[in-house]
Amino acid sequence: MNRIPFTELHRALSQALVKLCFESSKADACARLFTETTCDGVYSHGVNRFPRFVAMVRSGTVDVKGEAERIGYFGALERWDGNRGVGNLNAQACMSRTIELARLHGIGCVSLRNTNHWMRGGSYGWQAVEAGLIGVCWTNTMPNLPPWGGIDASIGNNPLVIGVPRRNGHVVLDIAMSQFSYGALASHRSRGELLSVDGGFDTEGHLTRDPAAIEESQRPLPIGYWKGSGLAVMLDLIAATVSMGRATHEIANDPLKETAISQMFIAIHPAALGPQDQMEQIADEVVSSLHRCRPVSEDKPVRYPGEQTLLIRAENLKLGIPVDSEIWEQILAI
Amino acid sequence: MNRIPFTELHRALSQALVKLCFESSKADACARLFTETTCDGVYSHGVNRFPRFVAMVRSGTVDVKGEAERIGYFGALERWDGNRGVGNLNAQACMSRTIELARLHGIGCVSLRNTNHWMRGGSYGWQAVEAGLIGVCWTNTMPNLPPWGGIDASIGNNPLVIGVPRRNGHVVLDIAMSQFSYGALASHRSRGELLSVDGGFDTEGHLTRDPAAIEESQRPLPIGYWKGSGLAVMLDLIAATVSMGRATHEIANDPLKETAISQMFIAIHPAALGPQDQMEQIADEVVSSLHRCRPVSEDKPVRYPGEQTLLIRAENLKLGIPVDSEIWEQILAI
Repeated sequence: MNRIPFTELHRALSQALVKLCFESSKADACARLFTETTCDGVYSHGVNRFPRFVAMVRSGTVDVKGEAERIGYFGALERWDGNRGVGNLNAQACMSRTIELARLHGIGCVSLRNTNHWMRGGSYGWQAVEAGLIGVCWTNTMPNLPPWGGIDASIGNNPLVIGVPRRNGHVVLDIAMSQFSYGALASHRSRGELLSVDGGFDTEGHLTRDPAAIEESQRPLPIGYWKGSGLAVMLDLIAATVSMGRATHEIANDPLKETAISQMFIAIHPAALGPQDQMEQIADEVVSSLHRCRPVSEDKPVRYPGEQTLLIRAENLKLGIPVDSEIWEQILAI
Repeated sequence: MNRIPFTELHRALSQALVKLCFESSKADACARLFTETTCDGVYSHGVNRFPRFVAMVRSGTVDVKGEAERIGYFGALERWDGNRGVGNLNAQACMSRTIELARLHGIGCVSLRNTNHWMRGGSYGWQAVEAGLIGVCWTNTMPNLPPWGGIDASIGNNPLVIGVPRRNGHVVLDIAMSQFSYGALASHRSRGELLSVDGGFDTEGHLTRDPAAIEESQRPLPIGYWKGSGLAVMLDLIAATVSMGRATHEIANDPLKETAISQMFIAIHPAALGPQDQMEQIADEVVSSLHRCRPVSEDKPVRYPGEQTLLIRAENLKLGIPVDSEIWEQILAI
């Protein structure tokens, strides 16, 4: 494990992307998103995901020349086509446009079809709150989760991101609709650990904390059982119908071929209604009420969504960003 | 148990409300929402909730003269004050205004503060889809759920409703952020049944399916553990900051005094981007993909959110709406 300074990691990723025929400003922006994601501690969607992203660029699944373009609009609502371009750049462009719409209309919405994996969804929540707006966005995915009462993986784990701005620490939630990702199952298994709570069914249909048993059955659990299953269906329905794009059941069930997915971006500009100071105070008091809650473990105070991210970000900016040595070699070798 | 025809139940509830000093058109509209909720099988928030609602009207917690009024606006975003009026009528009025805004701007948003319990949240999702729009709404509640990692009930179970219109059967999800409500725990206990999945912690901090143990510990589970806990916090933060209303920690922790709560209503008008036929087809295919999924139990096909509601509604419209005899006597005696 190396600790790489932010600017060095950013430069290395950017140079790698230029070698993959990215135009230099796109290489810089895409590399920045990967670097920020890693710096925030979301290694699974940061550098650890970079080799798979490179493979998808090389296979042509991600079109480095593709740009998101607006194909329909009505007031504060727009429909964009991602032209199978770079997923994180498409998402960033659409949240950027959503923020503009919200500043004009109080609330704005962009639906995006035909795009690629956005990597860390939280990035676009942070983007909204850093602009001072409330941000909500979600994506559909390939079918990777059985609906409640079903055996086949016919719904997606459809990550949902919600951010609320706050001067004393933005509040940002980034959750997938499965209780554990396949990546989390694999890493628990390789460490020989059970899951902290039931994560799915074994092949006999019993709930289990054994990650290997769930990998075998291919039946991970939606969050809240029937509730998260329903929520995943709704997120898919909205993203696909508003964007007129693909729904989960039409997306290739292969991580290396998952493309032409659909996303939604919503921003709300509460400061337009003012007064902002009082809104900040309301948010601060919600955070304080969480911090006052008696913790189950004395040494683990209750945290608000995003609080941990800010701590990790500060540490990684100070000490350098942890990058697995093998991944670092792969990046430098591109 | 009686089976009361829709029109008879509606008339009885409306007459009761008139006796409680409701102006006649408000009595009619409020009674209709209670009747529809019961007809759709959500008895807990239909007639079974009516006696508690009556008590809150009599105590003055619900002000029958209070009307929701707009107190701020900017384009497609508005802030309303419920003036502690009738919760279901305030919510209906705000979703109605949200639909108007979405028809004008493509997307619309109304935040509502200082209102009362909206009874069945799903009502306002059905309202949006019956108008042909996508509807999203949520409410905060009194503190009734410990956040993940905490002992005290300092967050709300904050019901979230999402509806997508579809000619062949609207899709409507209505979920609270707790895995089971206290009402569900009590009814399981009284039937001597365990919960179908873990519903909370016992007093020793172990996950349990025993409803009585959770009632004793007062530690029900959020859906998806840390995930639903975070989602509940975000819903509260948005509702309270945009409406400049009360957050969960400021709401009286007593079902008979729970008032001045905050809500959010969002509607999206995808037909403005057209073509509607193709959007309908996309939604139909998502529903078909769920119906094709192999069920865990041969006799229980996978259902989409709201599918069961449509079946119960049809049955209750045909046979009459089941009303507990004791509740029916109470209604007639008002």
